[in-house]
Amino acid sequence: MRACGEKETCVCVGIDPVYERLPAELLDNTRRRSARYRVDAIVRFCQTVMEVVAPHVPCVKLQSACFERYWWPGVEAYHRLIDHGRRLGLMVIADAKRGDIGISADHYAHGFLAPVDYDDLDDLLGPDALTVHAYLGVDALEPMLETSRQASRGLFALVRTSNPGGDVLQGLSLEEGGTVADATARMIAEAGAASGRLGRSGYSLLGAVVGATKPQDAVRLRGLMPEQIFLVPGFGAQGGQADDVRACFNPDGRGALVTASRSILYAYQKDDTVSWPAAIEKATIHMKVEIAEVSRPRGD
Amino acid sequence: MRACGEKETCVCVGIDPVYERLPAELLDNTRRRSARYRVDAIVRFCQTVMEVVAPHVPCVKLQSACFERYWWPGVEAYHRLIDHGRRLGLMVIADAKRGDIGISADHYAHGFLAPVDYDDLDDLLGPDALTVHAYLGVDALEPMLETSRQASRGLFALVRTSNPGGDVLQGLSLEEGGTVADATARMIAEAGAASGRLGRSGYSLLGAVVGATKPQDAVRLRGLMPEQIFLVPGFGAQGGQADDVRACFNPDGRGALVTASRSILYAYQKDDTVSWPAAIEKATIHMKVEIAEVSRPRGD
Repeated sequence: MRACGEKETCVCVGIDPVYERLPAELLDNTRRRSARYRVDAIVRFCQTVMEVVAPHVPCVKLQSACFERYWWPGVEAYHRLIDHGRRLGLMVIADAKRGDIGISADHYAHGFLAPVDYDDLDDLLGPDALTVHAYLGVDALEPMLETSRQASRGLFALVRTSNPGGDVLQGLSLEEGGTVADATARMIAEAGAASGRLGRSGYSLLGAVVGATKPQDAVRLRGLMPEQIFLVPGFGAQGGQADDVRACFNPDGRGALVTASRSILYAYQKDDTVSWPAAIEKATIHMKVEIAEVSRPRGD
Repeated sequence: MRACGEKETCVCVGIDPVYERLPAELLDNTRRRSARYRVDAIVRFCQTVMEVVAPHVPCVKLQSACFERYWWPGVEAYHRLIDHGRRLGLMVIADAKRGDIGISADHYAHGFLAPVDYDDLDDLLGPDALTVHAYLGVDALEPMLETSRQASRGLFALVRTSNPGGDVLQGLSLEEGGTVADATARMIAEAGAASGRLGRSGYSLLGAVVGATKPQDAVRLRGLMPEQIFLVPGFGAQGGQADDVRACFNPDGRGALVTASRSILYAYQKDDTVSWPAAIEKATIHMKVEIAEVSRPRGD
């Protein structure tokens, strides 16, 4: 949240690179059947994106699936890009949506959140935070919370997702009142309260993913999780509008990171008056202005 | 399920290797700060485990977290071990519990379930099936179902997990009746019915994870998901007993894969009368006998 203050915005740029959508000048399609070539092109794209947005936003979110698709060369690129972002001064969220129990949760925690303790892996900086599944319950989160606490990292648990089908389970009404997503929110608030804070921010190290496309739920979820930072995906290409995310912020205009991916990443496909990095920069600044309006502290 | 018939059992060996627990003869602790050394030791262990159990069981489940912990060297080992298992004639389940939406779900599907279409990655056989999260809804599963259908692979969605804390969300009562896990089960049954079959087995390519430690739920979930193969973890070290898994089978004694990890993998720590591979083999055969009793076809 301090990083948000420095950059005067709570915009997060989501980096979900798809080879086929990269700028033409990065592509050599005669080599498209090489996984390593594709990974190299994606890395060059992502590095430039992070360098372009770093002066403007506090945070980027890197989608693991886009890299895992290319097996171990992709996974190596993913870890190196996380390090690159961190060294640019960005907060980096690993959007890997991991979720398992016991020793497996502990392994994931070590793979993503603990400092590297091997001599023969480069001393790369890991992500500041990891996205995780919550359906398995608090005991499954515990090893991840423990490692986060020790390493001063954060987690974002999936509470209310931005996809249309998210309603099927998350929107069901419970006998005890509220929806399944509300129960997840209560569980996360409780686990978060027991898990320590992020620096002096007052926020829990356990945050929540709350989609920008569910404005009717955001007010209630904000009330249930006052100490959680909301990671708010679905802005832009998925249909979330600035007004829709207003309720994700606390009254002081803090407590949410609004993330847009495709509308920023592929801005050059709609704006060919400038170079592709310049189009990405313009789109980032445009979103920053939009979000500034809805994240102003609210008076009484 | 045909593989179960050939091996006359529905036992699956869960391979969740932890470096510190490997047999002493595989460890050279002077090299323990090398990630690549650890991965090599784990690979040698897992290869032997698969070779020892392949004549006895149809299936192994490889836990991704244990490999991701070691970044890209671990991920390379994971893909190569999956291939090794397949070439031994085993059905291999990638227990990676992925779950995301839209294009990200599609990337995961391609990374785990589609045939390799790059010239410079070895032509490794991928897993027969992948475990996935269901909290995000059916549209999030759709890209994975589509790829599974095309590539004749399977999915296992998390419905009822074996950990004690799984009850917190999964056990909540819904206004419409039943629990959250029941609603997940109905969603999976419906999505599975629309998604095609596994060969001529009659079973859907979309299966369900139902923990061995929740026998009181297994009967109801079996009723809600008659066409799903149940992947049943939690047997052995986590406390699931043979009687507890009886209800996971259909009346014909089919439709479930019961998986044990630690009780087989580390059997040599409780039985030093034989070599470690022999201890693993004995434990596998012992479990096979236990499960045979509870998976006998039930008469009326």
